Amino acid sequence: MTLAATEPTMDLPAVEERHLDRRQYPNGVAYMDGQYLPMSEAKISVLDWGFLHSDVTYDTVHVWDGRFFRLNQHLDRFFQNIKRLRMKLPYDRAEIAAILANCVSLSGHNSAYVDMICTRGASSTFSRDPREAENRFIAFALPFGSVANKEQLERGLHIAISYTVRIPPTSINPAIKNCHWLDLVQGLFEAYDYGAETALVVDTNGNIAEGPGFNVFAVKDGRLRTPAHSVLPGITRQTVFDLCSELGMSAMADNIRPGEIKAADEVFITSTAGGIMPVTRIDAALIGDGKVGSVTRELTSLYWKKHADPSWSTLVTALL
Amino acid sequence: MTLAATEPTMDLPAVEERHLDRRQYPNGVAYMDGQYLPMSEAKISVLDWGFLHSDVTYDTVHVWDGRFFRLNQHLDRFFQNIKRLRMKLPYDRAEIAAILANCVSLSGHNSAYVDMICTRGASSTFSRDPREAENRFIAFALPFGSVANKEQLERGLHIAISYTVRIPPTSINPAIKNCHWLDLVQGLFEAYDYGAETALVVDTNGNIAEGPGFNVFAVKDGRLRTPAHSVLPGITRQTVFDLCSELGMSAMADNIRPGEIKAADEVFITSTAGGIMPVTRIDAALIGDGKVGSVTRELTSLYWKKHADPSWSTLVTALL
Repeated sequence: MTLAATEPTMDLPAVEERHLDRRQYPNGVAYMDGQYLPMSEAKISVLDWGFLHSDVTYDTVHVWDGRFFRLNQHLDRFFQNIKRLRMKLPYDRAEIAAILANCVSLSGHNSAYVDMICTRGASSTFSRDPREAENRFIAFALPFGSVANKEQLERGLHIAISYTVRIPPTSINPAIKNCHWLDLVQGLFEAYDYGAETALVVDTNGNIAEGPGFNVFAVKDGRLRTPAHSVLPGITRQTVFDLCSELGMSAMADNIRPGEIKAADEVFITSTAGGIMPVTRIDAALIGDGKVGSVTRELTSLYWKKHADPSWSTLVTALL
Repeated sequence: MTLAATEPTMDLPAVEERHLDRRQYPNGVAYMDGQYLPMSEAKISVLDWGFLHSDVTYDTVHVWDGRFFRLNQHLDRFFQNIKRLRMKLPYDRAEIAAILANCVSLSGHNSAYVDMICTRGASSTFSRDPREAENRFIAFALPFGSVANKEQLERGLHIAISYTVRIPPTSINPAIKNCHWLDLVQGLFEAYDYGAETALVVDTNGNIAEGPGFNVFAVKDGRLRTPAHSVLPGITRQTVFDLCSELGMSAMADNIRPGEIKAADEVFITSTAGGIMPVTRIDAALIGDGKVGSVTRELTSLYWKKHADPSWSTLVTALL
């Protein structure tokens, strides 16, 4: 036996210079660090606080037929939330609007899902002090997406109520649009187990809160209600209030029990990803007659009409 | 005036092929997708559910003087949490141990901070259904780091109690080591405002919970207590129970009021990042006589002694 054979083999693998990524990415354009890039390049370090500690806020705005919808409201919320998290970016409002418009134009998408993200960032020393991290901004434009697909928009979604409690406001201010979704993901899996298509989770008092990426409204006797607590104050939710005001309908934020929402005449969800989307079944209960209701139809129709109205929308090309 | 001058200028910026990253990264080696890479390459897409929805679990183990400390316990927890989140990885336990050992060896660090991460991943269509995402594994080894620096280890940390409520177990199972830290980051900023060095947050009943990356123990009349609820069951926390058992000391998980912890004889925090670390001031209150106490010293000494014990630690090179 030679000496070499008795020693442990210490052949370590090589450290390669570049990550080789074989994944496919959706077709879009991102902005980071002064560059416009294909989506496949839009990556952040695993050491970024935005990943390791979900220390990040973001906003999603959509473009429909070449126009941003309610961009100002999304920018207002984004800037407010950056401030709430004590982060700072070296871009002003007009600069971010121009970056978003560039992402959309470069992507070639006439209708788009557009994200603006601010993460705590990282420091070169992997410091545990968030004040030492350099905050960073990332934006991207992808093809327009919806919580509900075409068939679901026609027949209405089937939702299950999960008794997972949405992270309460005493832990995280829900007005800060954040990426803390493990509760919502658990709700989703429970809904899938049940055979439903998406989920609603509850607040600490067992009232309906929100779903993964959407708010919810119940219509009863022509009056609209939406959960008041433990929810993101969604821009599409606000848009429903604004549309109701225009149509002379009553809408209010309130506590809604699971039993109440199941007994509603109509239910719909709201999200930048899809707008106003009908729900026709919750758990085993059909909502109303199980078909998309007239209030939902009227609001949906007005919602999409506003997308061409210059007081509600902005030409992408006007921001370039 | 020429026609061109009256038309809007539509000169869009170029889409560049590759992201140019000027950031500095700590010195380490990562593993992803079959490759060993420098830390600067360890990046994930902003579309990964692990980033956009913090849909990720991880575990951190440390290497001290060429030996992993309690690697089996960390691997047990990591695999259990992957299962709890309904994720799957194409690596077994021995393969992950070998990957971690390779990262450490390639990094050249004799003492290291070693992370293993499992994210939900992403799908090429940016699907909203987490079942369509391809789960992914990332590991890395960095220089050993500690919650407390050398000076703080000698004189004891100054902690402030934040009344931010740790995300409750009804929302997220705290046994799943997760990246939902906005509550802890808020606590940190409040502690900095107060002039303290780190923070403790509370549970829904106002009892002490945990801090950013650590559990806490209070010693009173020779008996140890640590919060029972709304905390990660830390491996170093468990190690303190094990050491107490060996030393014949009493240790239990219990509810601890803020007033009680301030009136303790000794307080220390526990984390894989630093081990057992003394606390000598909470808010304005000095703990005991304001110096590092004898129980803390005895446990710390035994803790580090165990790092050379083969029943508590594993040679990195034995796993290659």
